[in-house]
Amino acid sequence: MKTKAIFYHAGCPVCIAAETQFANALDPTRYDVEVVHLGQAKARVAEAERAGVKSVPALRLEGDIFHINYGASIEALR
Amino acid sequence: MKTKAIFYHAGCPVCIAAETQFANALDPTRYDVEVVHLGQAKARVAEAERAGVKSVPALRLEGDIFHINYGASIEALR
Repeated sequence: MKTKAIFYHAGCPVCIAAETQFANALDPTRYDVEVVHLGQAKARVAEAERAGVKSVPALRLEGDIFHINYGASIEALR
Repeated sequence: MKTKAIFYHAGCPVCIAAETQFANALDPTRYDVEVVHLGQAKARVAEAERAGVKSVPALRLEGDIFHINYGASIEALR
């Protein structure tokens, strides 16, 4: 069974670079990657915050959050 | 041909978590992942700095640097 990975971003240039090179680099045989644009999916900001996302882009992998570089603070997306 | 990815770290807990879950999540059919412990391989600190590494853990992927969370500043490893 594949593990779900969620890539949270906000459409910023830093986010796009991370998505293009990073989220796509994950092993597709092991991970189902969902890409969530928090600027467009406002309803999911609270979910991301509860999971521990402090800034975007961020990758949620098996319950852990990895903040990748820095695009925008989660507060700016509420 | 596989792309080389370099995971720079310094043995800190943040680094180890990122290595275990993150570097290992990359697609092994597309990436050859080299793990470099900058605390032990001091000679490679300059290489990492030239590539743009500001802190560890960091992943170098096709010329771009992705800083993942924050373990230690590169200055602390010189």
